[in-house]
Amino acid sequence: MHLPTPPERSFASDNAAGAHPDVIAALIEANTGHALAYGDDRWTRECSGLFHDLFGAGETFLTFTGTGGNILGLMAMLRPVDAVVCAAGSHINADEAGSAERILGAKLIDLPTRDGKLRPDQVRELDWMLGNEHHAQPAVVSITQSTELGTVYTAAEVAALSDAAHSLGMRVHMDGARVSNATAALGGTVDALRSFTVDAGVDVLTFGGTKNGMVGGEAVVFLDASLARRARYLRKTITQLPSKMRFVAAQFIALLTDDLWMRTALHSNAMAARLFEGVRDLPGVDVSAPEVNSLFPSLPADVIDVLRDWSFFWDWDVAKHQVRWMTAWDTSDDDVARFVDGVTSATHSFAPGELTN
Amino acid sequence: MHLPTPPERSFASDNAAGAHPDVIAALIEANTGHALAYGDDRWTRECSGLFHDLFGAGETFLTFTGTGGNILGLMAMLRPVDAVVCAAGSHINADEAGSAERILGAKLIDLPTRDGKLRPDQVRELDWMLGNEHHAQPAVVSITQSTELGTVYTAAEVAALSDAAHSLGMRVHMDGARVSNATAALGGTVDALRSFTVDAGVDVLTFGGTKNGMVGGEAVVFLDASLARRARYLRKTITQLPSKMRFVAAQFIALLTDDLWMRTALHSNAMAARLFEGVRDLPGVDVSAPEVNSLFPSLPADVIDVLRDWSFFWDWDVAKHQVRWMTAWDTSDDDVARFVDGVTSATHSFAPGELTN
Amino acid sequence: MHLPTPPERSFASDNAAGAHPDVIAALIEANTGHALAYGDDRWTRECSGLFHDLFGAGETFLTFTGTGGNILGLMAMLRPVDAVVCAAGSHINADEAGSAERILGAKLIDLPTRDGKLRPDQVRELDWMLGNEHHAQPAVVSITQSTELGTVYTAAEVAALSDAAHSLGMRVHMDGARVSNATAALGGTVDALRSFTVDAGVDVLTFGGTKNGMVGGEAVVFLDASLARRARYLRKTITQLPSKMRFVAAQFIALLTDDLWMRTALHSNAMAARLFEGVRDLPGVDVSAPEVNSLFPSLPADVIDVLRDWSFFWDWDVAKHQVRWMTAWDTSDDDVARFVDGVTSATHSFAPGELTN
Amino acid sequence: MHLPTPPERSFASDNAAGAHPDVIAALIEANTGHALAYGDDRWTRECSGLFHDLFGAGETFLTFTGTGGNILGLMAMLRPVDAVVCAAGSHINADEAGSAERILGAKLIDLPTRDGKLRPDQVRELDWMLGNEHHAQPAVVSITQSTELGTVYTAAEVAALSDAAHSLGMRVHMDGARVSNATAALGGTVDALRSFTVDAGVDVLTFGGTKNGMVGGEAVVFLDASLARRARYLRKTITQLPSKMRFVAAQFIALLTDDLWMRTALHSNAMAARLFEGVRDLPGVDVSAPEVNSLFPSLPADVIDVLRDWSFFWDWDVAKHQVRWMTAWDTSDDDVARFVDGVTSATHSFAPGELTN
Repeated sequence: MHLPTPPERSFASDNAAGAHPDVIAALIEANTGHALAYGDDRWTRECSGLFHDLFGAGETFLTFTGTGGNILGLMAMLRPVDAVVCAAGSHINADEAGSAERILGAKLIDLPTRDGKLRPDQVRELDWMLGNEHHAQPAVVSITQSTELGTVYTAAEVAALSDAAHSLGMRVHMDGARVSNATAALGGTVDALRSFTVDAGVDVLTFGGTKNGMVGGEAVVFLDASLARRARYLRKTITQLPSKMRFVAAQFIALLTDDLWMRTALHSNAMAARLFEGVRDLPGVDVSAPEVNSLFPSLPADVIDVLRDWSFFWDWDVAKHQVRWMTAWDTSDDDVARFVDGVTSATHSFAPGELTN
Repeated sequence: MHLPTPPERSFASDNAAGAHPDVIAALIEANTGHALAYGDDRWTRECSGLFHDLFGAGETFLTFTGTGGNILGLMAMLRPVDAVVCAAGSHINADEAGSAERILGAKLIDLPTRDGKLRPDQVRELDWMLGNEHHAQPAVVSITQSTELGTVYTAAEVAALSDAAHSLGMRVHMDGARVSNATAALGGTVDALRSFTVDAGVDVLTFGGTKNGMVGGEAVVFLDASLARRARYLRKTITQLPSKMRFVAAQFIALLTDDLWMRTALHSNAMAARLFEGVRDLPGVDVSAPEVNSLFPSLPADVIDVLRDWSFFWDWDVAKHQVRWMTAWDTSDDDVARFVDGVTSATHSFAPGELTN
Repeated sequence: MHLPTPPERSFASDNAAGAHPDVIAALIEANTGHALAYGDDRWTRECSGLFHDLFGAGETFLTFTGTGGNILGLMAMLRPVDAVVCAAGSHINADEAGSAERILGAKLIDLPTRDGKLRPDQVRELDWMLGNEHHAQPAVVSITQSTELGTVYTAAEVAALSDAAHSLGMRVHMDGARVSNATAALGGTVDALRSFTVDAGVDVLTFGGTKNGMVGGEAVVFLDASLARRARYLRKTITQLPSKMRFVAAQFIALLTDDLWMRTALHSNAMAARLFEGVRDLPGVDVSAPEVNSLFPSLPADVIDVLRDWSFFWDWDVAKHQVRWMTAWDTSDDDVARFVDGVTSATHSFAPGELTN
Repeated sequence: MHLPTPPERSFASDNAAGAHPDVIAALIEANTGHALAYGDDRWTRECSGLFHDLFGAGETFLTFTGTGGNILGLMAMLRPVDAVVCAAGSHINADEAGSAERILGAKLIDLPTRDGKLRPDQVRELDWMLGNEHHAQPAVVSITQSTELGTVYTAAEVAALSDAAHSLGMRVHMDGARVSNATAALGGTVDALRSFTVDAGVDVLTFGGTKNGMVGGEAVVFLDASLARRARYLRKTITQLPSKMRFVAAQFIALLTDDLWMRTALHSNAMAARLFEGVRDLPGVDVSAPEVNSLFPSLPADVIDVLRDWSFFWDWDVAKHQVRWMTAWDTSDDDVARFVDGVTSATHSFAPGELTN
């Protein structure tokens, strides 16, 4: 079988992409003389101000990793014996190697979902645990926006979850590793961002930078600033205090300047939509329209093998022959066109009878 | 009192310095297209190879922070109920906000020292705890090289400590946040580095990058590679797995190329020596010759206040009017000259009678 | 409605029962002069020997509580980042208030079951997690025998689970808070006990004493004695080292003498079977035959309320009007007869039309 | 050398003693029919009331072990990154196998003392750590009463420590494993007990039962009842929730009835005083007058060996030939007389020239 030249950039993950030129430029600009470590510098102060402006509220702490950001945000809300309610497929439960249990000492109550999204009834049903000394006490609902399955909570859905949580005395954490993509999906405005975060009752948000064009860095936005009182101690304890913090702050300044964060997200979402259009009708391809920057198509096993050798991507559910294709801030029209060409060639090369699905 | 123009770069800390131009260039070079995340990239592989060549042994894992590196290294050696033996003033005990206790769940047995350096007898004296079920079990000796007090263990001293530790079944960890400066002090060669690490029986070394001209990044070198078997799980759990790892690896590649790490360290050590020469005989200044890149002078309180307003630095021991002056990879001759001028002016402006020491 | 005199002993729980007279006698006998603390006494030595004889293998450590025993057993098998696989309804997951997460720092991978029993396929399906640095590593399968739902694993079922676990490099823990009742159900012999524990590949067993007629105490039997090497340190660390250990050991000596543990379990199982016979055909009562000493009947809500006011018992699943009736070592024929009388009266007093089910 | 018949009860430890007859009688009395588990029983309620009467304040939670009691009390006061200030020789630091670090995740700031007693200045000197994000935050001062060295804080000393702690926003925990002996030493009245606990600003007290004639059990008295709000969850999580709690409560009821706890403590203190009188002037014996129920004599090494073979006791400081002799609630006049005879014989048998001190 003949496949075209593979795309310059793979569809493996948005964290396989490099850094946006503006981010690199900001790093270079920040590399000017001396600045006190641990955040006592002008870049960190400017970054804090920009986040406050973005949400009209809150206090922000920078970390290096998303796991670190999630742990910091959760730790600020948890007392001993408290538990975190989350989706079974959530990153904190499935992809952070037990950080929550190890560092927080907290139980994760992981609930099944069909689409990665928790429902308010699932929170309310935990009511019986409260006050029961034999059970860890549900104290925080943690949701991911956009979810690990590429779905997006509407503002109303988040608000309903927050209401359910708050009415039981629980707090709400949002893992926003891809909050930019969710914002792009929900209107692509600052108002959209606020509608499903601060306005929807989210207490603490992890605002992702790495997957959206940064070299590395995340921001924990304590939308309820009272929760930030001890955050700087916690950040140090969990190993996430950046020494030369200006270099993380400068990257975020670049991202928050002229809405770069949203433009990159709108672009990567658009590239996913274009990819969907190119492959949706191909024989043997079963794929839903993307809400953000990821597709989860099912394909014949042989096609998967051939395509992956040609341009790498990850499995999602091996049993279902389902894979994940993900766009990034730097995915180009040409990348999409070449990848569609490749998928087209591969799917047509296998006569239906040959397929082992 | 008239003080000259302050130095362009302060003597506050080596982590107040920015990044070396070669490091920035390496970041830019690494920002090329897509590369798989979490270390499955050519930069990380090259970096691992360079570390292996440097020590002639070992397996290396990159982290973002020094605390993270120390926790990773220690975690790989500790079983439940194990304790870490360290100096009271060690970074893991005094400056990591209880990370070891929180994340490792381990007791730190912190021992007094006069110069930041543990002695073999202090290790051997813990013998009685071994096998006593009422006491946490000493399992790792952790030393800092160079120490938090700017002193340096000789290779023989490290070897003697390792022998004491190993003879009791304990392991040796070296916090090498400034291992480059120590190497510079002990000869400034790769052989010197090896002499007090791999050749002296150190099992795990945290090799510092941030304080030596990087944007941010540390390397945990498992000199006994058998200890690295589960390191990648541990790194993820403690929140220290870099997503776009190529950007940490590229910085280390720059540092390890043409001995940049040693040249920068030789330079900052030399600047400290020059600063010492410039201030050692000033009235009211009590200071010892630096072994690496830090001085710990005692000065009259009024002089401290005036100087700090002019060019910031940190207190070390307020009760003793002792402060810390630290040079960095980018400290220039001019910075030293100006700082010496300032100290000279300040010390001479206060007649002895005026001084409140 | 007229209800008869309630039973002298309720059917609330086997831990509502007191201590067997032989256990009290043993306490009195052990209260003789001085004996060194922490297990260096003749009772503890005798107790260890009796457990070794019982299983023909292993090393035993005494604790005060079942949760403590489970934590000790698991801790001996877990390394950092390891996870424990268990049933969602298991005591360690649902009734130990997050002890495992807090003290072990370990993730519990809690799997759904219809009858409280894990299946080998559920273990084998976790294969994909092994070696994935983003996920906690399944390392121990923990099962409860008899289960929290009153079901019993056959020896073959345990062996199949052990095989699945061991083939993946995992260990097997059995929470035997009611292992005596399970033994009674599976034949009521020492051979039966061995068949589903040591012979079936269980590595560590928590052997319950409290629910089976003791004042308080549990035994952790390391059937694979190599796992006990550091158990005495672990026990102290988790706060479970009994000071005057002779008093825990003496109780177990009583239990292990002349098969008291099995006689009490056979009795309580028999009382549950008798209770089942008495209520199975009553109108509105939906109940399965007990395998051990607990029944989980569904009853009309009004009947539940009336009966509970008369003789207390616990809800099991409120939504299903399901309750739990449990017998104990001291439940008498008369207790059962009176309780059956009460249930009979209550169910007949409510005409079907009146029932709110 | 000829030694007399050894004493019936050794001077090894108060936890080598058995249980007081009244305690056993209370266990037997409590073994009556069924009672709900986990503290919902009349004995636990009565016990809580007795403790409230004793202190005129507070809320009490029962545990099995002293380590468990200490962990529970401390956990109720600690937030993440908080540290506990304690004496280097304190039980929580030196004899609890790292429980605090493992279960609480907290750093212990262990300070040197000459007599086991912390001083207010030592607390005040930690002021600099507060607000420093690089250091664990001192939050609780934990003292032992009577101390591990057999010394006793006066009420004024405790009050001064509490003032120092509270003025810095810290709390005060008292490990009262031998609080009864301290009370006996300070007057032997309930007023004496209150004077150095609730009246002196102690927030949480661990009230020891095991070493004072119980089979096993400790009470955590939250003198500031607001700290008890989540205590029952914490107790379960740390594995210290007694299932058949009536049996722990009943023992305390016996101890608190007719001041048994104080009578036993007065007796054991008196026995230590009598022992001191018998040995103070013997050749080669260097011993201070006991404040409570322990002596720490230094003796010639050969004498130690001979005596220990004859009637066991523990070393205290091998380098100083110092041992510990401890009386208990059941030490008899005859035990003391025989032990004095033995020490007398042993010390006289060694001519000074023979002694290897």
